[in-house]
Amino acid sequence: MNTAQMLPEEFLYGGDYNPEQWLDYPHILERDIELMRKAHINTVTLGVFSWAALEPEENVFTFDWLERMVDRLHAGGISTIMATPSGARPRWLAEKYPEVLRVREDRTRELFGARHNHCYTSGAYRDRVQMINSRLAQTFADHPAVLMWHVSNEYSGECHCPLCQEAFRGWLKDRYDGDIDALNHAWWTAFWSHTYTDFSQIESPSSRGDSALHGLNLDWKRFVTAQTADFLRHEIEALRAGGARQPTTINLMDDYTGLDYGRLAKEVDIVSWDSYPRWHRGADAETALETGLQHDLMRGLKEAPFLLMESCPASPNWHEVSKAKRPGMLACAGLQAVAHGSDSVQFFQIRQSRGSSEKLHGAVIDHYGGEDTRVFREAAQLGSVLGTLEPLAHSRVEAPAAVLWDMESRWAMEDAQGPRNARLHYHETLVKVYGGLRRSALNVDVIPASSPLGSYEIVAAPMLYMLHPGTAERLRDFVSRGGTLIMTYWSGVADETDLCFLGPAPHDLTDVLGLRREEIDALYDGEENRLVPAADGGLAGGKSYVCRNLCEIVRLNGAKPLLEYAEDFYQGRPALTVNRYGLGRAYYLCADAEASLHKDLAERIMRQRNLRPILADVPDGCEVTSRTDGSREYVFVQNYSCAPAAVPVPPDAELLSGAGNVLPAYGTLVFARPLAGKPGRE
Amino acid sequence: MNTAQMLPEEFLYGGDYNPEQWLDYPHILERDIELMRKAHINTVTLGVFSWAALEPEENVFTFDWLERMVDRLHAGGISTIMATPSGARPRWLAEKYPEVLRVREDRTRELFGARHNHCYTSGAYRDRVQMINSRLAQTFADHPAVLMWHVSNEYSGECHCPLCQEAFRGWLKDRYDGDIDALNHAWWTAFWSHTYTDFSQIESPSSRGDSALHGLNLDWKRFVTAQTADFLRHEIEALRAGGARQPTTINLMDDYTGLDYGRLAKEVDIVSWDSYPRWHRGADAETALETGLQHDLMRGLKEAPFLLMESCPASPNWHEVSKAKRPGMLACAGLQAVAHGSDSVQFFQIRQSRGSSEKLHGAVIDHYGGEDTRVFREAAQLGSVLGTLEPLAHSRVEAPAAVLWDMESRWAMEDAQGPRNARLHYHETLVKVYGGLRRSALNVDVIPASSPLGSYEIVAAPMLYMLHPGTAERLRDFVSRGGTLIMTYWSGVADETDLCFLGPAPHDLTDVLGLRREEIDALYDGEENRLVPAADGGLAGGKSYVCRNLCEIVRLNGAKPLLEYAEDFYQGRPALTVNRYGLGRAYYLCADAEASLHKDLAERIMRQRNLRPILADVPDGCEVTSRTDGSREYVFVQNYSCAPAAVPVPPDAELLSGAGNVLPAYGTLVFARPLAGKPGRE
Amino acid sequence: MNTAQMLPEEFLYGGDYNPEQWLDYPHILERDIELMRKAHINTVTLGVFSWAALEPEENVFTFDWLERMVDRLHAGGISTIMATPSGARPRWLAEKYPEVLRVREDRTRELFGARHNHCYTSGAYRDRVQMINSRLAQTFADHPAVLMWHVSNEYSGECHCPLCQEAFRGWLKDRYDGDIDALNHAWWTAFWSHTYTDFSQIESPSSRGDSALHGLNLDWKRFVTAQTADFLRHEIEALRAGGARQPTTINLMDDYTGLDYGRLAKEVDIVSWDSYPRWHRGADAETALETGLQHDLMRGLKEAPFLLMESCPASPNWHEVSKAKRPGMLACAGLQAVAHGSDSVQFFQIRQSRGSSEKLHGAVIDHYGGEDTRVFREAAQLGSVLGTLEPLAHSRVEAPAAVLWDMESRWAMEDAQGPRNARLHYHETLVKVYGGLRRSALNVDVIPASSPLGSYEIVAAPMLYMLHPGTAERLRDFVSRGGTLIMTYWSGVADETDLCFLGPAPHDLTDVLGLRREEIDALYDGEENRLVPAADGGLAGGKSYVCRNLCEIVRLNGAKPLLEYAEDFYQGRPALTVNRYGLGRAYYLCADAEASLHKDLAERIMRQRNLRPILADVPDGCEVTSRTDGSREYVFVQNYSCAPAAVPVPPDAELLSGAGNVLPAYGTLVFARPLAGKPGRE
Repeated sequence: MNTAQMLPEEFLYGGDYNPEQWLDYPHILERDIELMRKAHINTVTLGVFSWAALEPEENVFTFDWLERMVDRLHAGGISTIMATPSGARPRWLAEKYPEVLRVREDRTRELFGARHNHCYTSGAYRDRVQMINSRLAQTFADHPAVLMWHVSNEYSGECHCPLCQEAFRGWLKDRYDGDIDALNHAWWTAFWSHTYTDFSQIESPSSRGDSALHGLNLDWKRFVTAQTADFLRHEIEALRAGGARQPTTINLMDDYTGLDYGRLAKEVDIVSWDSYPRWHRGADAETALETGLQHDLMRGLKEAPFLLMESCPASPNWHEVSKAKRPGMLACAGLQAVAHGSDSVQFFQIRQSRGSSEKLHGAVIDHYGGEDTRVFREAAQLGSVLGTLEPLAHSRVEAPAAVLWDMESRWAMEDAQGPRNARLHYHETLVKVYGGLRRSALNVDVIPASSPLGSYEIVAAPMLYMLHPGTAERLRDFVSRGGTLIMTYWSGVADETDLCFLGPAPHDLTDVLGLRREEIDALYDGEENRLVPAADGGLAGGKSYVCRNLCEIVRLNGAKPLLEYAEDFYQGRPALTVNRYGLGRAYYLCADAEASLHKDLAERIMRQRNLRPILADVPDGCEVTSRTDGSREYVFVQNYSCAPAAVPVPPDAELLSGAGNVLPAYGTLVFARPLAGKPGRE
Repeated sequence: MNTAQMLPEEFLYGGDYNPEQWLDYPHILERDIELMRKAHINTVTLGVFSWAALEPEENVFTFDWLERMVDRLHAGGISTIMATPSGARPRWLAEKYPEVLRVREDRTRELFGARHNHCYTSGAYRDRVQMINSRLAQTFADHPAVLMWHVSNEYSGECHCPLCQEAFRGWLKDRYDGDIDALNHAWWTAFWSHTYTDFSQIESPSSRGDSALHGLNLDWKRFVTAQTADFLRHEIEALRAGGARQPTTINLMDDYTGLDYGRLAKEVDIVSWDSYPRWHRGADAETALETGLQHDLMRGLKEAPFLLMESCPASPNWHEVSKAKRPGMLACAGLQAVAHGSDSVQFFQIRQSRGSSEKLHGAVIDHYGGEDTRVFREAAQLGSVLGTLEPLAHSRVEAPAAVLWDMESRWAMEDAQGPRNARLHYHETLVKVYGGLRRSALNVDVIPASSPLGSYEIVAAPMLYMLHPGTAERLRDFVSRGGTLIMTYWSGVADETDLCFLGPAPHDLTDVLGLRREEIDALYDGEENRLVPAADGGLAGGKSYVCRNLCEIVRLNGAKPLLEYAEDFYQGRPALTVNRYGLGRAYYLCADAEASLHKDLAERIMRQRNLRPILADVPDGCEVTSRTDGSREYVFVQNYSCAPAAVPVPPDAELLSGAGNVLPAYGTLVFARPLAGKPGRE
Repeated sequence: MNTAQMLPEEFLYGGDYNPEQWLDYPHILERDIELMRKAHINTVTLGVFSWAALEPEENVFTFDWLERMVDRLHAGGISTIMATPSGARPRWLAEKYPEVLRVREDRTRELFGARHNHCYTSGAYRDRVQMINSRLAQTFADHPAVLMWHVSNEYSGECHCPLCQEAFRGWLKDRYDGDIDALNHAWWTAFWSHTYTDFSQIESPSSRGDSALHGLNLDWKRFVTAQTADFLRHEIEALRAGGARQPTTINLMDDYTGLDYGRLAKEVDIVSWDSYPRWHRGADAETALETGLQHDLMRGLKEAPFLLMESCPASPNWHEVSKAKRPGMLACAGLQAVAHGSDSVQFFQIRQSRGSSEKLHGAVIDHYGGEDTRVFREAAQLGSVLGTLEPLAHSRVEAPAAVLWDMESRWAMEDAQGPRNARLHYHETLVKVYGGLRRSALNVDVIPASSPLGSYEIVAAPMLYMLHPGTAERLRDFVSRGGTLIMTYWSGVADETDLCFLGPAPHDLTDVLGLRREEIDALYDGEENRLVPAADGGLAGGKSYVCRNLCEIVRLNGAKPLLEYAEDFYQGRPALTVNRYGLGRAYYLCADAEASLHKDLAERIMRQRNLRPILADVPDGCEVTSRTDGSREYVFVQNYSCAPAAVPVPPDAELLSGAGNVLPAYGTLVFARPLAGKPGRE
């Protein structure tokens, strides 16, 4: 089932709406619907954090205001995404069942407060969630305006209470088949006399106890994800038990490292996420690149279109500096999501709250309350553009290249001490590798490292520190069948329990890469080395590249050096290599090089593979992407620079949005053209 | 009753003295009085932190050493300010009544230690304080040398113990008339399901619970002030019950944000404060400006002369860097207090302690112990100058301009998330606005925002985020009657419960200002914009000004633009405006502009209003102030630069201190002249 | 007894080895011995952190694997240093006896985890340590391959549990002869009403209670050292009770301030330490200077050769940045230890662990496991060089100069508030003073301030804030007998209870120095002053020197000024002085001057005293040191620059290692020559 089968034909446009804050202000509830219609809003999300208004006392349910709201919105042509309220519990729940409150890693139990501080293991919490979810489902299962279920809100965090400790021990017993010696070996507990003699001795990581036992840390993070997924399943089961048949989603966050989203995404029908980029902090083209990567990852989690569940029409209030969006930025940011595969543009929030912690968070309707504001005008205009783009809704993104992403590997790598405790820059490296491909005007999938690689031409596996069973085989097979692999330094170091492989490294891939790692050097912040053409080598003519942070020293065994180090004691040693293996090629980058190397490498590979860009000669600062419905290709060009840019629109293009060949700052051009074979293939 | 009625005719000169540390060193106690007399010291403060020496066991009182000390000082011509000892309790008190120890916001009770860690709610603590205070009062009520009561020491901090929680709930019940829904609305608890159903559910803010519920935070801070004021009243009542008739004071601190001093000041007869500027860190003229603002605020709290209760003759030991005062700085700093309305110069402390945490804090008599030290010589010299200035004691400061200051507004503004979590720079803005007026050689009052504005010519209300009921009306009335108002960005945002006003902003003042705020943009540290003359506008010729941090975008509705933005998407939009309203004018500054704008604006207004400076043509780096006794004006000129400065002493001036027309570095000139009408008025 | 009597004739070469991690990998244990032999390794340290493998359940001892390992190593020609396992306890011990777990200063008890978190007071812990130590001793007392006992590991930290509180009170009762008033005076508790009325009221310092009562803090630190020493004695007694006769050592750490090593060193036969310099972070010659100081301090603790117990052959994993050692650095660092008096070069560790927190710490044998690595090759080469240097083993270092070092003074000085809370730079000053002498090619002893000064020509006492009873007398006597003393600012301030001396300062030395301190000024980071030649003065011609941080203003009383301040209000006041006293001279440096002053001063003194350098004309970046066996002098020249250096090898030198007159980067030259009189004496 894909989004086209689950959602309306049009793009969803709207966002979070919290009428429970305004029940004493009927004229405002009235006026809001009027304003939403003017802004072409067709969907709102209700019920996030509404528990206290829905069940003010245990088993006293007051759904009437919510039912009325759904009906009145429906009457105004506006659909509802209905949230389960588990993101914040009412006070009576915490008072009566103190076990629902989280315990911190220092073993202090939290007081009632904030949000997201409930224990996912607590039976009492699960019971109350089951009750309210199933009641909500009973009420709205058949409502024609209720499109989908938004389960809880931004799942995150962890709990160290006795219930969770017990659940963790049970989870470990399962994982290690009840064999404590297997756990001891996996966690290498002989070090520092940490040997366990019984599962009952296990405690979650704590600053008061063990915080540097990497195997424990890694399994704890896995458990937290597993327990969260279990809670999510529990929520969905309650909805289904209540009769709900609509699709489910959870809203994920930007570069969140507390959970393995790849695991969570399996439990829901549609992935959605909350995007709050820091526009206008640095170069917007860089911000767009990072945001594009997140969009592509969200698409990659289920290899399907996703939803932009939250974004800010003006400025969020929790950034260090609340920068006003420049004219056009609102639409540009929303359309970027669409360009990367979103079937919606949704805001947090429609109406700005009067008080408490988010009172200064931007909204479509602000405290002033009028429609004569810049934000409202721009929001209404975007609503209108989305209407004209309706044919694109539910179309797919086809990408010839994939970047592998692995949260467990990242957890292990960043938890390890060494080789660079002053940051390894995994995320930045991911962005650079991704950017090399994306800025060569290719669509790129960002996918879990365990995904099949069948149809790709290029696969990049940056800093793949941990190799799960099967990964090396899958990469070998990919190259031998003719694919081009890009690997980097600090790959193939440890197995899935974070034990370092013994023998030559990168583990099990030295033949594919034609080399082995000998040493890894780390550079201080501010230090740099340079990569220069090797004899008979080079990447893009005689260009050289600065590198920083990490420099591997490798010994070649078949690979050909393209670049070599210019300085330090490893001057002259290979820094970028290529190895032919089977029908394909494997590139290995030894050092954390500047971004331009990645683009030059992508273009070299495109030439080797006769891969064409979506659009040629796109100016710097512009991003090109495409979606397809199988017969037509829809091309998006977006200008993230502050100056107008000349765009080479092809003569056969059918313009869907935007006009002319000059794209203003923060402008978006969308055109359609016939799909000529697989995208990205000559 | 004013200070002239409560205190001796002369300036008080002296400081804290702790003979209880030296009871085993009789020759030192002997020698100290001799040295004090040489330094012209006429007053010491005794008893601060002396509880353990006064009541070594419960109900065992050992006042004899203190009585002897007061008598011997008196015999030497030195009066006493007597402190109540509640600033630090003896160990037996904490051992017997553990409830007196504070509980932190994380709900951990403190151990005995440090000072200032007693619970203000504890009945046990109040009982013991009542006992010792009334005993002290009985002993010293009629002593001719005991001038006044110094209640406790630098009240500060808060306690989250169960007693305080209960008191907080009671205070809230009063405040909201027992109506929990009124509290829910005020705190906007529908957000995040935080609705209270009973006052018993309320907990003070905590990092373990709620820390971002702004209404709760704000009311907690108010409660802390109320509870501290209640404790202060309790202390004073005990003194009065013991027969004390002398005036009372509390010593306040520099820019302390933990309490609303405006509220506390009402409980005592005289305001005093402890001033420890970081002289010689940057430009001393800037430090003098900030210190002058604090002096003027202390005067403003009761609109009366105040006392400089503590200052350091050499270098305090708790600054990051203990900078020696340059020659002359000791007198210059002391005389600045006098120039701004102080009736004393007092030091912490007379005799440097031998051990423990303040052993390296500067003192009039240091470890060396001789009178042949630079500090002693300079202290003696200042004592002599204060003698010659005796006619000025108790004279008043008359100011044509006032700057409004509001601690509750600051609490709310700085607690809010957005628009600039990386600091709003409220304090710096206050200094700039104040500095614009002060450097135009006007006396300036710094007064609580709730004060009457009757007699002022100019009122500045910088960043008045919160408007209490009546404030907008008072400002409107002030302008309509002919006053000149200066308002800035980020004013009129929220009501007294920190709920944002709905509708046009600045709330209820858009007509007075002739504009409404549309947006507020925040700039990163390092970013800037410029304000340039608007068409037919300008402030001081064609000058332009850099601005940073915050830039409002306003829509004019009658106001005339003087300056406009030079950059970003709001280029050309108004940045400084003026609006005629009634008989007066209202200026509105949209952005956080550099300091020179404020001086240019002040001078423009002075020209418009025919206001004359206290002294014209004063060189940069010098500060001019004046006091008056109703018939004569006493003008102070102080040179805070490192180089001599030429001062235009008027021909009819009667020199009281200093000589000639060239003021040396850190020199002070004081002259008298006949008072020609209301100061600052042509 | 010296090391020659306690250890084999040769240098020890090897390091920590942890076979308990590899008991499931028999081929690796096999292969490791083979590789060790190839690397000329002759000693390993076993048993550090092996408790869980040695006593998996209470009173169940499994020593067989360890016995087999010792035997097999012995068969391979490799000796063992045997550790007691108390550095980390097994889980069953903490489960059964929770009192063994430490309590933090905030009174929270730690969970099991990490290492080093046992209470040194706990009777239960002491009982179990006694049992395992005596069992180990019984097993290995007579083993011919077991060379010595390595007691625990890197003793450190403190415990605030009730048992420790009680022990602390007992320790204080002893120290103050049961007289609480003596303690009150020593701690100056009259300040802030902190008077104790009974020893039972005493609590260790805590962030929840007292943290700034300097006397309490100081005595607590002394107690922690005393209690650790007591525990160490307890460990050794258990070994001796088990029959062990081999020497004992403890491994100390680099610039560790948690314990007074001078006190601990008394309890063991040989001092050893763990050296992990940050090579290649800045200039290596600076790193070498700091490391040399630590080596010299380790030698100074017992005035005898020491052992380099741990060092990293590659890169440690816990530095911020894991920098690979440049070619040659491994040998250079190891030989520096030898040059300064070490009788060993030992690594942590021989075989890199597969998992847990130190899996990426460098090792002689890494995860790859082959001998064809750069690290292994360099380690083997160093092993070979150490063989050729065997004649030097156990020879002594003779130094004409000493630098006084006092941990108690440092504790008090750094705990004090003022004069520069933004760091006093004690350690850096020590390095500069030491560097002035060392870079003038003198051997330097770094010795506890309480050491006899009999045989030295020069004694430097930098920042000797605290004067213990007898110190001033010893310094006076040293100078009067003809010695040259170098003192600096911030000396002679406080007595051993941290009470400031009353009267002229530096206390009891104003006659020796010919001056008294009047004031001390502190400079902000970035601020500086300059020292320029005084009239008829100067240090090295007309050179001037920058100074920072602290500047004392002194009044001369006999001393002659050499340099004076160039700026600020104390311009022209003396900044470096010299005073003749008895047969000697006392220099006093008033300000924290740049390093070159110290070298110029050292050379001036050498000229005055006709002291000759070990080797003249050594190029910058090279370090010269020497050892002697009484008849010959062994001179080491090491090149810490990145470029080759010309070394003036004397014609009569017998080269022991290295070749030619040009020393490559990171190269070491060792030559022997006849000893002509006392080293360093013309």
